[in-house]
Amino acid sequence: MSEFALIDEIRKRCAVARAETVVGNGDDAATLLVPAGYELVVCTDTLVAGRHFPLNTRPQDIGWKALAVNLSDLAAMGAEPAFSLLALTLPEQDLPWLQSFIDGFSELSRQHHVALLGGDMTRGPLSVTVTALGFVPAGHARCRRGAKPGDVIAVCGNLGCAAAALNYLQDHPDCGRSESLDLNLEAHRWVQQLDRPNPQVAQGQVLRDAVSSMIDISDGLAADLGHILAASAVGAEVELAQIPGWVTLSAASDRAMATEQVLHGGDDYVLLVTLSPERFDALRTAVAQSGAQLSKLGRITEGSSITLIDPDGKRESLPTRGWDHFA
Amino acid sequence: MSEFALIDEIRKRCAVARAETVVGNGDDAATLLVPAGYELVVCTDTLVAGRHFPLNTRPQDIGWKALAVNLSDLAAMGAEPAFSLLALTLPEQDLPWLQSFIDGFSELSRQHHVALLGGDMTRGPLSVTVTALGFVPAGHARCRRGAKPGDVIAVCGNLGCAAAALNYLQDHPDCGRSESLDLNLEAHRWVQQLDRPNPQVAQGQVLRDAVSSMIDISDGLAADLGHILAASAVGAEVELAQIPGWVTLSAASDRAMATEQVLHGGDDYVLLVTLSPERFDALRTAVAQSGAQLSKLGRITEGSSITLIDPDGKRESLPTRGWDHFA
Repeated sequence: MSEFALIDEIRKRCAVARAETVVGNGDDAATLLVPAGYELVVCTDTLVAGRHFPLNTRPQDIGWKALAVNLSDLAAMGAEPAFSLLALTLPEQDLPWLQSFIDGFSELSRQHHVALLGGDMTRGPLSVTVTALGFVPAGHARCRRGAKPGDVIAVCGNLGCAAAALNYLQDHPDCGRSESLDLNLEAHRWVQQLDRPNPQVAQGQVLRDAVSSMIDISDGLAADLGHILAASAVGAEVELAQIPGWVTLSAASDRAMATEQVLHGGDDYVLLVTLSPERFDALRTAVAQSGAQLSKLGRITEGSSITLIDPDGKRESLPTRGWDHFA
Repeated sequence: MSEFALIDEIRKRCAVARAETVVGNGDDAATLLVPAGYELVVCTDTLVAGRHFPLNTRPQDIGWKALAVNLSDLAAMGAEPAFSLLALTLPEQDLPWLQSFIDGFSELSRQHHVALLGGDMTRGPLSVTVTALGFVPAGHARCRRGAKPGDVIAVCGNLGCAAAALNYLQDHPDCGRSESLDLNLEAHRWVQQLDRPNPQVAQGQVLRDAVSSMIDISDGLAADLGHILAASAVGAEVELAQIPGWVTLSAASDRAMATEQVLHGGDDYVLLVTLSPERFDALRTAVAQSGAQLSKLGRITEGSSITLIDPDGKRESLPTRGWDHFA
């Protein structure tokens, strides 16, 4: 099967009809119409084998995740996803691998009605770069800047699961990935979160107009909250015991490990927001209707750093380091 | 310097103001407004080290080329480029390398007033994926389909130079890249074409409304003409001696080598079009005003294959194979 035949195969399996498409997949470039009153929202993210996913990750999970991390970025702007471009670099022609990869990629595409508009396939060390395009009502995109002292900090799901999964897989190198057979129930949930993160697309649209700033946590709470603080010129206090996931992870391993996982783990792909305290209860109810749980974990302050408050009331300044690929 | 500091450095060096930008570079995603009456045009292409450029290519040329190949795809739709996203995978933190890379990338960006909207930087084997976004008046994008029997086939510049450069560099492995010192004048021109292709953006907009189909030649004349034929359900006759570049390349090496270079070499990044014969003279004049030369090299026929006619009138059927990364 030639490169062009492989590309045809991908095209067919990822066909999703969208009214905005004018020139679809298969030409030098694709063209589309942005609905009147909307802005186009665009982002791109690369996954490199062995760095963004363990080498033994199943191809269908790589396909899912490559799209998911991008839809999570669109969600963090409050956008509705619409289109994708897939640039896939593969070490060799491996049709079964490619078909499994496309299974996962197209499964998530269909869930969010995302049409593949084009891409590129090249030979080289395994890596995947996806570009995602979406729409947001003009003027309604939510950014990292905008947090104000007095705002509460809230997160839209549990943190630390993907980091716990990586730690678990390091200790159990022979366990089948995403197969429940040899994983305990908790570890299975962690590995699911690592391999198949669910971008919070619906939640992003619910949160968008009620919050003062929003970001998705991909590099760890400390790093991504740090981005909000830097963009908004504010500081923050975070209550360790209120970080959703910390209590459970502490019981599963120990406090120090759990703290590292929830603060610096990364790969969580849940939305982090700041908002006026009086809006919290109504928003928690709205987010619950979309199937997620909004939890307070701290507050925005003056200043520029993060103060972590542990369950004993001890305060420490938190480095905003996250996953730095060049550290 | 951390990953985030490196990214800030890139952002600053690639800042280009565009009225359509709403949320610029630096958030989870960027947002933009598409001008009324225009379609958004989008494409993505990856360059892998050692495959799409020789390993000793200068970083500034890699930066230039990574954007150029994408602008060439926009040009082939008749679009005006506007924005880019840069996903860069680097084996290690190498600030001088990165600064040179950005020199080339931003030089071409400024030439075409392309603003960098976002991207990703990861660690891994060197590869670059650029996504380019542009605009075309609604309904005016030119596609691969549309060629009709009787149309002339024309190309907007010389073919085979990049292939000749690769052959030259194989024979002269120690020659300094893109330095004129140890290259003869002809070889220097070839290497320039390989390292710094000029996307035919102005030409694409001149050609767009006058031609019946258009593509940029990236995989070689035979393969890319083959794409037009497949999309348009037609065949073609090509006159070898009329392919611009063939006579010169024949003199520089031999006929067989020159024929291979112009037909299958790839990396040319010139526009290939089909059009009604009566439109050719006026269009050649218009293209000349934009600084390029439009040359006839054959005609569209019934059927589905390419017939090559050599200078002695001998006809042979041409395989439409081009650069297949998995062959």
